[in-house]
Amino acid sequence: MKALQVELGERSYPIHIGSGLLDKPELIRNHIAASQVMVVSNETIAPLYLDRVCDMLSGYEQHSVILPDGEQYKNLDVLNRIFDALLEKRFNRQCTLIALGGGVIGDMTGFAAASYQRGVSFIQLPTTLLAQVDSSVGGKTGVNHRLGKNMIGAFHQPRCVLIDTETLNTLDDRQLAAGIAEVIKYGLIRDTGFFNWLEENIDRLTGRDPEALGHAIERSCINKAEVVAADELESGQRALLNLGHTFGHAIETATGYGTWLHGEAVSTGMAMAADLSARHGWLSGEDALRIRRLLVRAGLPVTPPESMSKTEFMDLMAVDKKVLDRKLRLVLLKSIGEALVTADFRPDLLNETLEHYHQKAS
Amino acid sequence: MKALQVELGERSYPIHIGSGLLDKPELIRNHIAASQVMVVSNETIAPLYLDRVCDMLSGYEQHSVILPDGEQYKNLDVLNRIFDALLEKRFNRQCTLIALGGGVIGDMTGFAAASYQRGVSFIQLPTTLLAQVDSSVGGKTGVNHRLGKNMIGAFHQPRCVLIDTETLNTLDDRQLAAGIAEVIKYGLIRDTGFFNWLEENIDRLTGRDPEALGHAIERSCINKAEVVAADELESGQRALLNLGHTFGHAIETATGYGTWLHGEAVSTGMAMAADLSARHGWLSGEDALRIRRLLVRAGLPVTPPESMSKTEFMDLMAVDKKVLDRKLRLVLLKSIGEALVTADFRPDLLNETLEHYHQKAS
Repeated sequence: MKALQVELGERSYPIHIGSGLLDKPELIRNHIAASQVMVVSNETIAPLYLDRVCDMLSGYEQHSVILPDGEQYKNLDVLNRIFDALLEKRFNRQCTLIALGGGVIGDMTGFAAASYQRGVSFIQLPTTLLAQVDSSVGGKTGVNHRLGKNMIGAFHQPRCVLIDTETLNTLDDRQLAAGIAEVIKYGLIRDTGFFNWLEENIDRLTGRDPEALGHAIERSCINKAEVVAADELESGQRALLNLGHTFGHAIETATGYGTWLHGEAVSTGMAMAADLSARHGWLSGEDALRIRRLLVRAGLPVTPPESMSKTEFMDLMAVDKKVLDRKLRLVLLKSIGEALVTADFRPDLLNETLEHYHQKAS
Repeated sequence: MKALQVELGERSYPIHIGSGLLDKPELIRNHIAASQVMVVSNETIAPLYLDRVCDMLSGYEQHSVILPDGEQYKNLDVLNRIFDALLEKRFNRQCTLIALGGGVIGDMTGFAAASYQRGVSFIQLPTTLLAQVDSSVGGKTGVNHRLGKNMIGAFHQPRCVLIDTETLNTLDDRQLAAGIAEVIKYGLIRDTGFFNWLEENIDRLTGRDPEALGHAIERSCINKAEVVAADELESGQRALLNLGHTFGHAIETATGYGTWLHGEAVSTGMAMAADLSARHGWLSGEDALRIRRLLVRAGLPVTPPESMSKTEFMDLMAVDKKVLDRKLRLVLLKSIGEALVTADFRPDLLNETLEHYHQKAS
């Protein structure tokens, strides 16, 4: 078992990574302040792990709320079901929420915790690779709006993140690949050595080699924890974690949440960002190709849906949270292992990238 | 014109109080960081003041969203209309929201600002006495849930509060009285001198004497700013501001939001809290009577609705945000000018108070 720490002063918290951690109650019980605990999960995950989590919580006044599974349910209406459950059970301000599931469950539970009675505690038990390497760490919580992804939310840090790598055994291949997209992201934006390791070990990851997965999760969490500690509220470098996300969110919004997995959209977005970076001469054409090849080897898509026009991309990207005084800012690559956030890209080259990918798709 | 300051370090902000301040754009323009401004108001207030506010904002990219008027619309569905407007107009993270209206508009606009893109700026332009003396100051934002009032929200401080006392000219008598309830509250919990002044000047307030109203607003805001500066997140003394609110929220929830005005419910709640305090021998019977008499002179109700049984009160009070480890805590009075938050009240005496008021009502 490994333990990392997200250093945020009073709001610091541990990330535990290991096999079988859902049988180690002491790791989470220390972080529960009072008697009331609400587990939030979904219809896919609850049948697999809810009993074990309830066992860990024996002695507490525990309840659960089970939401439908999928990004299309990450909205204010479904969020309200968590509030219904909390109020029906008369949960007070000292209660603790526990997110048991992937990124959607983690983001919604976190936002419910941020907003219930103006803020209560929560704990993350991520069960997908994507949630384990990215969304469960760092305190970004929220829901989607039909006009934009993650547009309603809060920064609210968990008290603890418990990553039981055994939960990946029940994850399907498509979900596993979606998680690998965010793993590759860390290599691209700040960890050249990790990118090289991924090129050598990608088949072990897709083949679910436990040691390789454990290493990839740990290295991803170390990278994430460092970035979050340096810039909790995304006033600077944290935005680099959004490599591929501006293109990706546009794909998710355009296709209807839940059609593309978040990691799949990010994979395509990273390929597009690499293409645009290469057109600027910042990234070599060879490196753009290496990136594309690694994503494809991970089983990920690298081409946006045929239906999306250039105009639709531009319209949807215009509501991105990184937009500053009406100027779109993008995360682009200087090299493999070095990214920047910039509004100073050439619009004609962005146009070329969108054109190129639209032709590729059709 | 008077200016106070809410001292919260980096999050400090001014409260400007005076007549005709809606014609002083410089007071708010300093607090708008970038070009996009969204004014949130309601169908009653917008026809009266929206044009003047728009004039103050000339040169900005300004839009407005007009919500229906009333506490029954303070919910997640109506909140979503603010997000719709922000996203349709492609508002970015540097935008500013402006709340033009009473407590409902202020609370909802503040929560929209807290949650839109995980947090943007907002400014309060309160137009009711209740909002001017209480809800616009201190950063409590949120919406109601059918099972409990203000159960979903955030602490999010405004950048500035601008109180134009002329807006009270368009306030009806019932709304004015509702605001006076919160004014009386400050006298009761921490300002004996102010309570004495109110006993002498209550007719000037109900008669809308501008000087008396100005003084009452200023003294209320001074009290509120001191309490908030000392305890922003309500870990201690800020809870005293909830005198009468546990009983009052139960009345509002039971009768359906919008039937009773918030200040009316608080008035009745304060009378009940005074009664219960007197039954404990903490407050003299004479002082409980003085309180009741002042509320009645202000034109406020002091008896709960006949329809509410003891059981309904107890059920609804059990979800109060002050509940700690299943124990109800109430704000009670030691004397006029001194309050305490306590779980150590006698349940039999609470029973007597509820019984007494139920008989009174029927």
